[in-house]
Amino acid sequence: MATAEPLTDRTMPRYALGIEYDGTDYLGWQRQHQEPTVQATLERALSFVANESVQVVCAGRTDTGVHALGQVVHFDCAAARNERAWILGTNSRLPATLALTWARLVSPEFHARFSARLRSYRFRLVQRPTRPALDARQALWVREPLDIEAMREAAKSLIGRLDFTSFRTLHCQAHSPVREVHRIDIKQNGALIELEFEANAFLHHMIRNIVGSLLKVGHGERPVTWIADVLALRDRSKAGATSAPQGLTFLRARYPAEFGLPHEHCL
Amino acid sequence: MATAEPLTDRTMPRYALGIEYDGTDYLGWQRQHQEPTVQATLERALSFVANESVQVVCAGRTDTGVHALGQVVHFDCAAARNERAWILGTNSRLPATLALTWARLVSPEFHARFSARLRSYRFRLVQRPTRPALDARQALWVREPLDIEAMREAAKSLIGRLDFTSFRTLHCQAHSPVREVHRIDIKQNGALIELEFEANAFLHHMIRNIVGSLLKVGHGERPVTWIADVLALRDRSKAGATSAPQGLTFLRARYPAEFGLPHEHCL
Repeated sequence: MATAEPLTDRTMPRYALGIEYDGTDYLGWQRQHQEPTVQATLERALSFVANESVQVVCAGRTDTGVHALGQVVHFDCAAARNERAWILGTNSRLPATLALTWARLVSPEFHARFSARLRSYRFRLVQRPTRPALDARQALWVREPLDIEAMREAAKSLIGRLDFTSFRTLHCQAHSPVREVHRIDIKQNGALIELEFEANAFLHHMIRNIVGSLLKVGHGERPVTWIADVLALRDRSKAGATSAPQGLTFLRARYPAEFGLPHEHCL
Repeated sequence: MATAEPLTDRTMPRYALGIEYDGTDYLGWQRQHQEPTVQATLERALSFVANESVQVVCAGRTDTGVHALGQVVHFDCAAARNERAWILGTNSRLPATLALTWARLVSPEFHARFSARLRSYRFRLVQRPTRPALDARQALWVREPLDIEAMREAAKSLIGRLDFTSFRTLHCQAHSPVREVHRIDIKQNGALIELEFEANAFLHHMIRNIVGSLLKVGHGERPVTWIADVLALRDRSKAGATSAPQGLTFLRARYPAEFGLPHEHCL
């Protein structure tokens, strides 16, 4: 990882937060030399409220232009603030595109990344002849018609505990290419098509690479069986292009119930 | 009106267009001294494609921050372009927040404003304890819980051919305060609440003033019967505050079928 993770200080209280953001105008999640990033913007606001320097760890780092409704972070902090004070104080220091949705004092055993058991994402497409304007920040425009049934059928071969080498970016730093995908649902409502993914975790660019590949099947450029073939080859160069980020939203991370997070984040 | 309407030249072809926009960064629809406005941005792109100065007339002028999915405009223009050329050429000159969705050569009798028989709008609320970030550009945040049933009951008194003086802005330039409201539907899906309005036409700020007043009923500050009382008083000072614009989207205008517009714009 590019940035060192804050050391766990078991003498300090640990807090978990729910975070929502419109990723359009951020250079992704992770703090770096360039601004603005979601992490740096959030840490600055939390540090102001805490009156000390705060560093956060998130459930899933998102790329430039990717959004979140249920991102989860944790941080350690000596400052004693109740949940309401964290929310009101921090939200008043954050821009309109970033907000805390909840706060909890949690056990020092809780870790936003390592304790997460399930993560879910949504990818939105708008399929119609002309580009969308009102939802352009949150959907990928697809001009040509899609065979949704073929995409659903092809997606079935990605369910299970599998080696996703073909769908990870070459820069992915994860030790193992194996992930367990529980669910890929594809819903259509007029021009709006939503793909919902649930897995224990995802590799870097994994969802955008899967979407880019499923689009080839949807457009009839590849047969339904091609997705399974690509997966078996364990070769990134064989899959489709990485789809644009703006359709992607991190819906939520889920944790063992004993951590006492809000209902929608519990297993 | 602040700007003169272009004169009808019956020797020139008349075109109708479907327009979609994210109104967040525009100073409303109407061309004025300050920029950007939706009208000026659209006219500049159309004039480039037409290679002559084009002026448009819209179905319903929208305020700063108000969006549109199915705005309709017409314009007269000597340039001979097919529908595909208008769409592709103009969209390539427009920013991501503004797009043509269709184009039709129409009869010179067609008028985007005067021929429209029905207009519909959507107003989105997000009711939850913390402010939304991902959908902040397209929804009004309501912190306190709402009694949706009370709002639905109160809205019934606004259905019909009625004098909406109490809900028009003092600056409204319409000759008559009478409008015929056909439908106010209030749908709830979790934290998201959508009010859908359909009428022959709306007065300036009419929907935002109705929403501001229905919120008072929803919050229990006023009884259900208060909306009918306010309507009967024909006094703007008796209604609720004008709600913020970002929740409002012009869904579509509908016209007699003989004009041959796309299906969703026909009666």
